[in-house]
Amino acid sequence: MTDPSSTYELLAISVRNLIDATIRTELEPNAIASIATQIDAITGRLSTEQMPGSFGERVSIDGQSPASGNAVIGVRNPLAPPLVIHEGNGAVWSELILGAAYEGPAGYVHGGVCAMVLDHVLGATAHKPGRPAYTGTLTLRYHRGTPLRKALRAEAWVDRVEGVKTFAVGQLSDSGGVTVSAEGVFIHPRK
Amino acid sequence: MTDPSSTYELLAISVRNLIDATIRTELEPNAIASIATQIDAITGRLSTEQMPGSFGERVSIDGQSPASGNAVIGVRNPLAPPLVIHEGNGAVWSELILGAAYEGPAGYVHGGVCAMVLDHVLGATAHKPGRPAYTGTLTLRYHRGTPLRKALRAEAWVDRVEGVKTFAVGQLSDSGGVTVSAEGVFIHPRK
Repeated sequence: MTDPSSTYELLAISVRNLIDATIRTELEPNAIASIATQIDAITGRLSTEQMPGSFGERVSIDGQSPASGNAVIGVRNPLAPPLVIHEGNGAVWSELILGAAYEGPAGYVHGGVCAMVLDHVLGATAHKPGRPAYTGTLTLRYHRGTPLRKALRAEAWVDRVEGVKTFAVGQLSDSGGVTVSAEGVFIHPRK
Repeated sequence: MTDPSSTYELLAISVRNLIDATIRTELEPNAIASIATQIDAITGRLSTEQMPGSFGERVSIDGQSPASGNAVIGVRNPLAPPLVIHEGNGAVWSELILGAAYEGPAGYVHGGVCAMVLDHVLGATAHKPGRPAYTGTLTLRYHRGTPLRKALRAEAWVDRVEGVKTFAVGQLSDSGGVTVSAEGVFIHPRK
């Protein structure tokens, strides 16, 4: 017996590795063209049975989390690193390594990718099961470059809660300290 | 004769389509497992000749832009939409549509992806050929959800320049108006 969720997760892992290889390959163009044709055939096969919209819009109760397609934490989304979010002692954190696909300046993580990671981790301080929080405002301060291929840690805490608003602070760091710090306001929509 | 750059670009386009199909497929697990094996074989083939680090770290003069691996505009990077940046009349803009891979809340673009796009477009107001600008601070204000699969426009302008600092403002919008607004300070490192 195969666990359906984990099979889809393994496919996403394979595609993440393919993304890295696509960026870094130095095979000659004729070989590349042939490989692109093979990939198109695989995409055609996967598309013979597919949900009409995005993963989150899917209506199905089969044990797969609605967040499986999420751009930051989605285990089925090859774009997502994916972040695994931990909680404890009033904080939320994730440990991650970002490769060639997340590059901005040569050898460094794109500043926008740092923003994406911090948006999610700060927002996670406000998330409650069945009651998601949406970003109201987010402010990022870049201290220095965030390196590719190094162990990184993203973490956040709640500074205070005022009604539907959660004020969160957090940071992205490598072994040498903080590279980007952030503060944000996350909002629970009134029901 | 094949143009090497465009062949690599076509491969990235094929992988972007594969990413979407990976998230949205409803094929049964045994078929998925077999496809993952095929993808691993392709990745192995691409990896037989590859650059040691990320694309930007590569030392080669063959006509491929160092930004080809960039997470937002990289034509060789399947993670990148990729944005095409236009300039004119003192503004910088890009038109884009974001699919299932960029999802946060069901049916909407992840707030962190909006931040990533705006970081790049605001930063582009400060970029000069051979003289990149780095993000100093970035502040985002989310007005409402940014829809998936709809025509979006990201645009930015320079508010003012003070020495090495460019103060930029911008916004992300759909046909109904602004969804996220942003302001940022971008810095040219002193040489």
